[in-house]
Amino acid sequence: MSHTTQNTFTGADVVSLRDTLRPGDVDAVGAIVTATGKFRPGEIAVAQELVQETLARGEAAGYLFTFADAGERVVGYACYGQIPCTLTSYDLYWIAVDPGLQGRGVGRLLVNAAEAHVRRLGGRRMFIDTSSRPDYAATRAFYERCGYTCEATLRDYYATGDGKAIYGKDLCTGP
Amino acid sequence: MSHTTQNTFTGADVVSLRDTLRPGDVDAVGAIVTATGKFRPGEIAVAQELVQETLARGEAAGYLFTFADAGERVVGYACYGQIPCTLTSYDLYWIAVDPGLQGRGVGRLLVNAAEAHVRRLGGRRMFIDTSSRPDYAATRAFYERCGYTCEATLRDYYATGDGKAIYGKDLCTGP
Repeated sequence: MSHTTQNTFTGADVVSLRDTLRPGDVDAVGAIVTATGKFRPGEIAVAQELVQETLARGEAAGYLFTFADAGERVVGYACYGQIPCTLTSYDLYWIAVDPGLQGRGVGRLLVNAAEAHVRRLGGRRMFIDTSSRPDYAATRAFYERCGYTCEATLRDYYATGDGKAIYGKDLCTGP
Repeated sequence: MSHTTQNTFTGADVVSLRDTLRPGDVDAVGAIVTATGKFRPGEIAVAQELVQETLARGEAAGYLFTFADAGERVVGYACYGQIPCTLTSYDLYWIAVDPGLQGRGVGRLLVNAAEAHVRRLGGRRMFIDTSSRPDYAATRAFYERCGYTCEATLRDYYATGDGKAIYGKDLCTGP
Protein backbone atom coordinates (compact mmCIF):
# COMPACT_ATOMS: atom_id res chain seq x y z
CA MET A 1 0.00 0.00 0.00
CA SER A 2 2.07 2.90 -1.23
CA HIS A 3 -0.70 5.33 -2.12
CA THR A 4 -2.06 7.96 0.23
CA THR A 5 -5.77 8.50 0.66
CA GLN A 6 -6.90 11.86 1.88
CA ASN A 7 -10.13 12.99 3.34
CA THR A 8 -11.12 16.35 4.70
CA PHE A 9 -12.88 15.80 7.99
CA THR A 10 -13.08 19.30 9.34
CA GLY A 11 -12.94 22.64 7.66
CA ALA A 12 -9.18 22.72 8.11
CA ASP A 13 -7.68 19.30 8.78
CA VAL A 14 -6.82 16.73 6.19
CA VAL A 15 -6.27 13.12 7.19
CA SER A 16 -3.64 11.20 5.32
CA LEU A 17 -3.04 7.47 5.57
CA ARG A 18 0.32 5.72 5.70
CA ASP A 19 1.39 2.12 6.19
CA THR A 20 5.02 2.69 7.14
CA LEU A 21 5.89 2.80 10.84
CA ARG A 22 7.82 5.54 12.63
CA PRO A 23 9.51 5.12 16.04
CA GLY A 24 7.13 7.72 17.52
CA ASP A 25 4.18 5.43 16.72
CA VAL A 26 4.80 3.36 19.87
CA ASP A 27 3.92 6.35 22.04
CA ALA A 28 1.18 7.52 19.69
CA VAL A 29 -0.54 4.13 19.84
CA GLY A 30 -0.26 4.08 23.64
CA ALA A 31 -1.83 7.52 23.86
CA ILE A 32 -4.73 6.82 21.49
CA VAL A 33 -5.56 3.38 22.90
CA THR A 34 -5.43 4.78 26.44
CA ALA A 35 -7.59 7.78 25.50
CA THR A 36 -10.40 5.54 24.22
CA GLY A 37 -10.87 4.27 27.79
CA LYS A 38 -11.78 0.82 26.44
CA PHE A 39 -8.70 -1.18 27.31
CA ARG A 40 -6.95 -2.58 30.38
CA PRO A 41 -3.28 -1.66 30.98
CA GLY A 42 -2.17 -5.14 29.90
CA GLU A 43 -4.02 -4.73 26.62
CA ILE A 44 -2.48 -1.30 26.00
CA ALA A 45 0.95 -2.85 26.51
CA VAL A 46 0.12 -5.53 23.91
CA ALA A 47 -0.97 -2.86 21.39
CA GLN A 48 2.35 -1.08 21.82
CA GLU A 49 4.37 -4.31 21.69
CA LEU A 50 2.96 -5.09 18.24
CA VAL A 51 4.26 -1.73 16.96
CA GLN A 52 7.62 -2.26 18.66
CA GLU A 53 7.96 -5.79 17.33
CA THR A 54 7.15 -4.66 13.79
CA LEU A 55 9.67 -1.80 14.01
CA ALA A 56 12.28 -4.37 15.09
CA ARG A 57 11.43 -7.31 12.81
CA GLY A 58 9.51 -5.82 9.90
CA GLU A 59 7.04 -7.93 7.95
CA ALA A 60 8.32 -11.11 9.62
CA ALA A 61 6.46 -10.04 12.76
CA GLY A 62 3.20 -10.73 10.91
CA TYR A 63 1.48 -7.40 11.52
CA LEU A 64 0.37 -4.72 9.08
CA PHE A 65 -0.47 -1.16 10.06
CA THR A 66 -2.35 1.80 8.66
CA PHE A 67 -1.97 5.13 10.41
CA ALA A 68 -4.22 8.19 10.01
CA ASP A 69 -2.31 11.44 10.45
CA ALA A 70 -3.69 14.97 10.66
CA GLY A 71 -0.61 16.98 9.86
CA GLU A 72 2.11 15.72 12.22
CA ARG A 73 -0.38 14.24 14.64
CA VAL A 74 -1.49 10.58 14.68
CA VAL A 75 -5.28 10.54 15.08
CA GLY A 76 -5.99 6.84 14.58
CA TYR A 77 -4.55 3.52 13.48
CA ALA A 78 -5.42 -0.01 12.48
CA CYS A 79 -3.29 -3.14 13.05
CA TYR A 80 -4.15 -6.28 11.12
CA GLY A 81 -2.57 -9.42 9.71
CA GLN A 82 -2.99 -12.89 8.31
CA ILE A 83 -4.24 -15.30 10.96
CA PRO A 84 -1.55 -17.96 11.57
CA CYS A 85 -2.49 -21.40 10.21
CA THR A 86 -5.08 -19.95 7.83
CA LEU A 87 -4.69 -19.55 4.08
CA THR A 88 -6.79 -16.47 3.32
CA SER A 89 -8.20 -15.16 6.63
CA TYR A 90 -7.07 -11.93 8.26
CA ASP A 91 -7.79 -10.37 11.62
CA LEU A 92 -8.24 -6.68 12.34
CA TYR A 93 -6.37 -6.88 15.65
CA TRP A 94 -6.67 -3.24 16.67
CA ILE A 95 -8.44 -0.13 15.47
CA ALA A 96 -8.58 3.04 17.53
CA VAL A 97 -9.35 6.68 16.80
CA ASP A 98 -8.63 9.67 19.03
CA PRO A 99 -11.91 10.13 20.98
CA GLY A 100 -11.96 13.84 20.13
CA LEU A 101 -12.12 12.97 16.42
CA GLN A 102 -14.53 10.03 16.46
CA GLY A 103 -17.67 10.23 14.32
CA ARG A 104 -15.91 12.00 11.46
CA GLY A 105 -15.15 9.04 9.25
CA VAL A 106 -11.56 8.32 10.34
CA GLY A 107 -12.44 4.80 11.54
CA ARG A 108 -14.21 4.05 8.29
CA LEU A 109 -11.18 5.27 6.30
CA LEU A 110 -8.95 2.94 8.32
CA VAL A 111 -11.24 -0.08 7.88
CA ASN A 112 -11.51 0.55 4.13
CA ALA A 113 -7.73 0.89 3.77
CA ALA A 114 -7.10 -2.29 5.79
CA GLU A 115 -9.62 -4.25 3.70
CA ALA A 116 -8.14 -2.95 0.43
CA HIS A 117 -4.66 -3.95 1.59
CA VAL A 118 -5.81 -7.43 2.59
CA ARG A 119 -7.62 -7.91 -0.74
CA ARG A 120 -4.41 -7.04 -2.60
CA LEU A 121 -2.63 -9.73 -0.56
CA GLY A 122 -5.24 -12.32 -1.58
CA GLY A 123 -7.23 -12.31 1.66
CA ARG A 124 -10.83 -13.47 1.39
CA ARG A 125 -12.18 -13.04 4.91
CA MET A 126 -11.61 -10.43 7.63
CA PHE A 127 -12.43 -11.10 11.27
CA ILE A 128 -12.71 -8.68 14.18
CA ASP A 129 -12.92 -9.70 17.84
CA THR A 130 -14.56 -7.33 20.28
CA SER A 131 -16.24 -7.37 23.64
CA SER A 132 -19.90 -8.30 24.07
CA ARG A 133 -20.18 -5.84 27.00
CA PRO A 134 -22.89 -3.16 26.84
CA ASP A 135 -20.31 -0.35 26.79
CA TYR A 136 -19.02 -1.71 23.45
CA ALA A 137 -22.40 -1.29 21.72
CA ALA A 138 -21.20 1.71 19.69
CA THR A 139 -18.10 -0.22 18.60
CA ARG A 140 -20.19 -3.20 17.47
CA ALA A 141 -22.61 -0.89 15.63
CA PHE A 142 -19.64 0.69 13.82
CA TYR A 143 -18.46 -2.74 12.59
CA GLU A 144 -21.99 -3.54 11.44
CA ARG A 145 -22.12 -0.28 9.46
CA CYS A 146 -18.83 -1.37 7.85
CA GLY A 147 -20.51 -4.58 6.62
CA TYR A 148 -19.46 -6.99 9.37
CA THR A 149 -21.79 -9.62 10.86
CA CYS A 150 -21.56 -11.04 14.36
CA GLU A 151 -20.84 -14.70 13.57
CA ALA A 152 -20.27 -15.95 17.12
CA THR A 153 -20.22 -14.95 20.77
CA LEU A 154 -18.10 -16.74 23.38
CA ARG A 155 -19.35 -16.01 26.91
CA ASP A 156 -16.94 -15.23 29.77
CA TYR A 157 -14.03 -15.02 27.31
CA TYR A 158 -12.09 -11.88 28.28
CA ALA A 159 -13.24 -12.17 31.88
CA THR A 160 -16.23 -13.53 33.76
CA GLY A 161 -19.21 -11.59 32.37
CA ASP A 162 -17.15 -10.19 29.46
CA GLY A 163 -17.73 -12.26 26.33
CA LYS A 164 -16.04 -12.13 22.94
CA ALA A 165 -18.11 -11.20 19.90
CA ILE A 166 -16.53 -12.36 16.64
CA TYR A 167 -17.42 -10.30 13.57
CA GLY A 168 -16.69 -11.47 10.03
CA LYS A 169 -16.91 -10.11 6.51
CA ASP A 170 -16.32 -11.66 3.08
CA LEU A 171 -13.85 -9.50 1.19
CA CYS A 172 -14.62 -10.97 -2.21
CA THR A 173 -17.86 -12.18 -3.68
CA GLY A 174 -16.38 -14.05 -6.63
CA PRO A 175 -15.73 -17.81 -6.72
CA MET B 1 2.83 -29.33 37.67
CA SER B 2 5.68 -31.25 39.25
CA HIS B 3 3.91 -34.54 39.78
CA THR B 4 3.92 -37.42 37.34
CA THR B 5 0.74 -39.23 36.41
CA GLN B 6 1.07 -42.76 35.16
CA ASN B 7 -1.29 -44.95 33.28
CA THR B 8 -0.80 -48.42 31.88
CA PHE B 9 -2.20 -48.46 28.38
CA THR B 10 -0.87 -51.74 27.11
CA GLY B 11 0.26 -54.84 28.84
CA ALA B 12 3.82 -53.54 28.94
CA ASP B 13 4.05 -49.80 28.39
CA VAL B 14 3.55 -47.15 31.01
CA VAL B 15 2.86 -43.57 30.01
CA SER B 16 4.35 -40.86 32.18
CA LEU B 17 3.57 -37.18 31.91
CA ARG B 18 6.06 -34.32 32.21
CA ASP B 19 5.79 -30.57 31.76
CA THR B 20 9.47 -29.76 31.33
CA LEU B 21 10.81 -29.45 27.80
CA ARG B 22 13.82 -31.24 26.34
CA PRO B 23 15.70 -30.15 23.19
CA GLY B 24 14.63 -33.38 21.46
CA ASP B 25 10.99 -32.35 21.78
CA VAL B 26 11.22 -30.11 18.71
CA ASP B 27 11.80 -33.15 16.50
CA ALA B 28 9.37 -35.31 18.51
CA VAL B 29 6.57 -32.77 18.04
CA GLY B 30 7.32 -32.51 14.32
CA ALA B 31 7.18 -36.29 13.96
CA ILE B 32 3.94 -36.75 15.89
CA VAL B 33 2.10 -33.83 14.31
CA THR B 34 3.20 -34.98 10.86
CA ALA B 35 2.17 -38.58 11.58
CA THR B 36 -1.40 -37.57 12.41
CA GLY B 37 -1.84 -36.47 8.77
CA LYS B 38 -4.11 -33.63 9.94
CA PHE B 39 -1.87 -30.59 9.46
CA ARG B 40 -0.37 -28.57 6.61
CA PRO B 41 3.44 -28.09 6.50
CA GLY B 42 3.04 -24.46 7.65
CA GLU B 43 1.05 -25.62 10.67
CA ILE B 44 3.63 -28.26 11.56
CA ALA B 45 6.31 -25.55 11.46
CA VAL B 46 4.21 -23.43 13.86
CA ALA B 47 3.84 -26.37 16.28
CA GLN B 48 7.62 -26.81 16.33
CA GLU B 49 8.28 -23.08 16.67
CA LEU B 50 6.23 -22.97 19.87
CA VAL B 51 8.48 -25.64 21.39
CA GLN B 52 11.62 -23.89 20.15
CA GLU B 53 10.45 -20.51 21.43
CA THR B 54 9.66 -21.96 24.85
CA LEU B 55 13.04 -23.71 25.04
CA ALA B 56 14.64 -20.32 24.28
CA ARG B 57 12.49 -17.97 26.35
CA GLY B 58 10.87 -20.13 29.02
CA GLU B 59 7.55 -19.12 30.55
CA ALA B 60 7.81 -15.64 28.99
CA ALA B 61 6.90 -17.24 25.66
CA GLY B 62 3.40 -17.82 27.04
CA TYR B 63 3.13 -21.54 26.28
CA LEU B 64 2.75 -24.50 28.61
CA PHE B 65 3.40 -28.09 27.61
CA THR B 66 2.56 -31.56 28.81
CA PHE B 67 4.35 -34.48 27.20
CA ALA B 68 3.35 -38.14 27.36
CA ASP B 69 6.34 -40.48 27.26
CA ALA B 70 6.39 -44.27 26.93
CA GLY B 71 9.84 -45.01 28.25
CA GLU B 72 12.21 -42.79 26.24
CA ARG B 73 9.70 -42.25 23.45
CA VAL B 74 7.36 -39.25 23.17
CA VAL B 75 3.91 -40.60 22.25
CA GLY B 76 1.84 -37.42 22.58
CA TYR B 77 1.80 -33.84 23.77
CA ALA B 78 -0.42 -30.89 24.56
CA CYS B 79 0.49 -27.20 24.22
CA TYR B 80 -1.71 -24.62 25.94
CA GLY B 81 -1.58 -21.16 27.49
CA GLN B 82 -3.44 -18.14 28.73
CA ILE B 83 -5.09 -16.28 25.87
CA PRO B 84 -3.52 -12.80 25.55
CA CYS B 85 -5.82 -9.98 26.68
CA THR B 86 -8.01 -12.34 28.73
CA LEU B 87 -7.99 -12.68 32.50
CA THR B 88 -8.91 -16.34 33.06
CA SER B 89 -9.28 -17.97 29.63
CA TYR B 90 -6.85 -20.52 28.25
CA ASP B 91 -6.49 -22.13 24.87
CA LEU B 92 -5.46 -25.71 24.18
CA TYR B 93 -3.38 -24.77 21.14
CA TRP B 94 -2.19 -28.23 20.18
CA ILE B 95 -2.84 -31.80 21.19
CA ALA B 96 -1.53 -34.75 19.22
CA VAL B 97 -1.01 -38.43 19.90
CA ASP B 98 1.03 -40.89 17.87
CA PRO B 99 -1.55 -42.48 15.51
CA GLY B 100 -0.36 -45.98 16.44
CA LEU B 101 -1.34 -45.33 20.06
CA GLN B 102 -4.61 -43.46 19.64
CA GLY B 103 -7.72 -44.84 21.31
CA ARG B 104 -5.84 -45.95 24.43
CA GLY B 105 -6.52 -42.95 26.64
CA VAL B 106 -3.33 -40.95 26.04
CA GLY B 107 -5.26 -37.95 24.65
CA ARG B 108 -7.60 -37.99 27.61
CA LEU B 109 -4.64 -38.08 30.03
CA LEU B 110 -3.15 -35.04 28.28
CA VAL B 111 -6.42 -33.07 28.34
CA ASN B 112 -6.96 -33.87 32.03
CA ALA B 113 -3.39 -32.82 32.89
CA ALA B 114 -3.70 -29.57 30.92
CA GLU B 115 -7.02 -28.72 32.59
CA ALA B 116 -5.62 -29.48 36.05
CA HIS B 117 -2.60 -27.25 35.36
CA VAL B 118 -4.82 -24.40 34.12
CA ARG B 119 -7.10 -24.72 37.17
CA ARG B 120 -4.08 -24.41 39.47
CA LEU B 121 -3.14 -21.20 37.63
CA GLY B 122 -6.62 -19.77 38.24
CA GLY B 123 -8.02 -20.40 34.76
CA ARG B 124 -11.80 -20.64 34.50
CA ARG B 125 -12.43 -21.44 30.85
CA MET B 126 -10.58 -23.59 28.29
CA PHE B 127 -11.09 -23.16 24.56
CA ILE B 128 -10.06 -25.44 21.70
CA ASP B 129 -10.14 -24.46 18.03
CA THR B 130 -10.46 -27.18 15.46
CA SER B 131 -11.57 -27.68 11.89
CA SER B 132 -15.22 -28.16 10.93
CA ARG B 133 -14.18 -30.46 8.06
CA PRO B 134 -15.74 -33.95 7.92
CA ASP B 135 -12.34 -35.62 8.39
CA TYR B 136 -12.10 -33.97 11.82
CA ALA B 137 -15.30 -35.63 13.10
CA ALA B 138 -13.37 -38.04 15.35
CA THR B 139 -11.36 -35.14 16.80
CA ARG B 140 -14.52 -33.17 17.58
CA ALA B 141 -16.17 -36.25 19.11
CA PHE B 142 -13.08 -36.67 21.33
CA TYR B 143 -13.41 -33.09 22.64
CA GLU B 144 -17.11 -33.67 23.29
CA ARG B 145 -16.30 -36.81 25.31
CA CYS B 146 -13.89 -34.64 27.31
CA GLY B 147 -16.77 -32.30 28.24
CA TYR B 148 -16.31 -29.60 25.59
CA THR B 149 -19.21 -27.97 23.74
CA CYS B 150 -19.06 -26.45 20.27
CA GLU B 151 -19.82 -22.80 21.07
CA ALA B 152 -19.29 -21.33 17.59
CA THR B 153 -18.39 -22.17 14.01
CA LEU B 154 -16.74 -19.66 11.65
CA ARG B 155 -17.12 -20.72 8.01
CA ASP B 156 -14.24 -20.48 5.52
CA TYR B 157 -11.82 -19.68 8.35
CA TYR B 158 -8.76 -21.87 7.74
CA ALA B 159 -9.44 -21.92 4.01
CA THR B 160 -12.44 -21.71 1.72
CA GLY B 161 -14.67 -24.64 2.74
CA ASP B 162 -12.66 -25.25 5.93
CA GLY B 163 -14.36 -23.61 8.90
CA LYS B 164 -13.21 -23.21 12.49
CA ALA B 165 -15.19 -24.91 15.25
CA ILE B 166 -14.60 -23.33 18.66
CA TYR B 167 -15.06 -25.66 21.63
CA GLY B 168 -15.29 -24.39 25.19
CA LYS B 169 -15.48 -25.84 28.70
CA ASP B 170 -15.96 -24.28 32.12
CA LEU B 171 -13.15 -25.45 34.37
CA CYS B 172 -14.86 -24.45 37.59
CA THR B 173 -18.48 -24.56 38.57
CA GLY B 174 -18.20 -22.39 41.68
CA PRO B 175 -18.90 -18.65 41.82
